Amino acid sequence: MQPIQDTYPDELSHCYGCGRLNPDGLQIKSVWNGNEAIARFTPHPYHTAVPGYVYGGLLASLIDCHGTGTAAAAAYAAAGREPGTAPYLRYLTASLRVNFLKPTPLGPELVIHGRVKEMAGRKVVVEAWIEANGETTVQGEVVAVQAPDYMIEALLRRG
Amino acid sequence: MQPIQDTYPDELSHCYGCGRLNPDGLQIKSVWNGNEAIARFTPHPYHTAVPGYVYGGLLASLIDCHGTGTAAAAAYAAAGREPGTAPYLRYLTASLRVNFLKPTPLGPELVIHGRVKEMAGRKVVVEAWIEANGETTVQGEVVAVQAPDYMIEALLRRG
Repeated sequence: MQPIQDTYPDELSHCYGCGRLNPDGLQIKSVWNGNEAIARFTPHPYHTAVPGYVYGGLLASLIDCHGTGTAAAAAYAAAGREPGTAPYLRYLTASLRVNFLKPTPLGPELVIHGRVKEMAGRKVVVEAWIEANGETTVQGEVVAVQAPDYMIEALLRRG
Repeated sequence: MQPIQDTYPDELSHCYGCGRLNPDGLQIKSVWNGNEAIARFTPHPYHTAVPGYVYGGLLASLIDCHGTGTAAAAAYAAAGREPGTAPYLRYLTASLRVNFLKPTPLGPELVIHGRVKEMAGRKVVVEAWIEANGETTVQGEVVAVQAPDYMIEALLRRG
């Protein structure tokens, strides 16, 4: 299935974390499989904390964007709608919690999982975790809130 | 006063968020004033979420590194020691919580505050918040844990 971020309209695709139109960004891509969303990301050598380990702020960024991506994918699925169709279901992070369970080795591809824990009205709570070499090193939670229609419309007009 | 990150030994100064020796990194610098630590950071234009606003993962990174920096500065102060002297007091993030109170405008310099909420044994809990144009847009908390001596020693040996 196509990554959810690739279905966002151009005007909403400039995010440093996951915008496909941000050439300086991380371009995180979350693929929904009907049950959870998966993202894969290989940090750059400069994404270091102390030598050999991944920087925590990058790990928080992965949890953040994959969390809002999971929320959008799950909301389209719950509504029985095709991802990326208008009116756009786009989520903003209200809060983020990240627990660093153990140091994450720098080198291997990371696998980020996202699952819906709660969906109520415009709010989706996503639990997410990161695996390196098959071991979970980070666990997090994102409270995602659907972007208000007036904000989406203003951004679409602004282009 | 000198930023606490500029007192870290070279071997511990490669962090993407706050390492002075990471040319690709953010080079966050936290200055302790005896009561709190302050960092100032102006995001790049590409650090966007949606156009006009700062990317949440960057804001989480600012909270993260400024939190561990605040912990280190406060720990040296509490011990009556000169920052940067061995044995090194260097902190790792055990957990991070970030609440995005309102969108943070992209453009102005951000001011990040860090204060010690709790200091017990090897653990320091730091509350931090980010101001843009004098308004608090982000509030967060970092649970920082002093890096174990064997880890510091291994990193110093590794160079």
